[in-house]
Amino acid sequence: MSLSMYRVSVPVFVRGLNVLADLLKKAEAHVEQQGAVPDAILSARLADDMLPLSAQVQRASDTSKLSVERLSGVAAPKFEDNETSFDQLQQRIANTIAYLNTVDAAQFDGSGERVIKLNWGKFQPEFTGEDYLLTFALPNFYFHIATAHGILRNQGVPVGKLDYIGATL
Amino acid sequence: MSLSMYRVSVPVFVRGLNVLADLLKKAEAHVEQQGAVPDAILSARLADDMLPLSAQVQRASDTSKLSVERLSGVAAPKFEDNETSFDQLQQRIANTIAYLNTVDAAQFDGSGERVIKLNWGKFQPEFTGEDYLLTFALPNFYFHIATAHGILRNQGVPVGKLDYIGATL
Repeated sequence: MSLSMYRVSVPVFVRGLNVLADLLKKAEAHVEQQGAVPDAILSARLADDMLPLSAQVQRASDTSKLSVERLSGVAAPKFEDNETSFDQLQQRIANTIAYLNTVDAAQFDGSGERVIKLNWGKFQPEFTGEDYLLTFALPNFYFHIATAHGILRNQGVPVGKLDYIGATL
Repeated sequence: MSLSMYRVSVPVFVRGLNVLADLLKKAEAHVEQQGAVPDAILSARLADDMLPLSAQVQRASDTSKLSVERLSGVAAPKFEDNETSFDQLQQRIANTIAYLNTVDAAQFDGSGERVIKLNWGKFQPEFTGEDYLLTFALPNFYFHIATAHGILRNQGVPVGKLDYIGATL
């Protein structure tokens, strides 16, 4: 048996986005319990030249929906990156999952051989769909989930590896 | 065309470990340039209850080699988690890659259906090999690479997303 391009992308992204939603729910509960302001967490980052938590969520959304768009050809919705609250970020995640769930396995036929070119500043790679998914889209996606988790831990939010791995979903 | 369990694991892990080795090389160069002591970076962490950089490297090694052992049945080497220098961590990574490269695609035959049980404290999941790889092994592996990257950024080491994604390898 082997894995389809669909199996290695859509359900994996949906699962990761659900993990991210759960991490944000726990962060919001922590903020409320502490009587703190949400923005202190949403704008927290690991380094001055890294993106804050809210942008990590936006990039996880983009990485998943743009990857699926590039592989399947099904146009993804555009979002404006204007989320400034936990509720808005949860809505962004929900909208992303809703799009992902509109794409079915048959729409990934031939996606492994599809040529995908990126324009990432100085980095302008050209991949097969298979290499794009395994060496670019998935590492990037997990980067944003793990970095969001790292920001929350760094800020003292009581979440951990079991939350990241989805064992508490 | 579809993806083999081998393709989604061994080359992906080898690539990620090479990225990690590259991040450590850049961290070591930074430490030397700053006239700092390596231990300040190797023992750095994002939260008091998270593992330091050296242990993130050890866990990335373990996640990759244990995943491949569980899926292929090819026994992985045991390491003692006693690395305390950049050189020793590089050696750990090299030894892990050397093991991964001994396993070939044919040894993954049937791995997608293999039943894999884990004993992770309170979390005792039972997976098919396919679900184990996609929902546990890969997210875990990228957790450690991304967290190592986050620690380095948090410590002011001049690395970035292009390094993480392997664009500078």
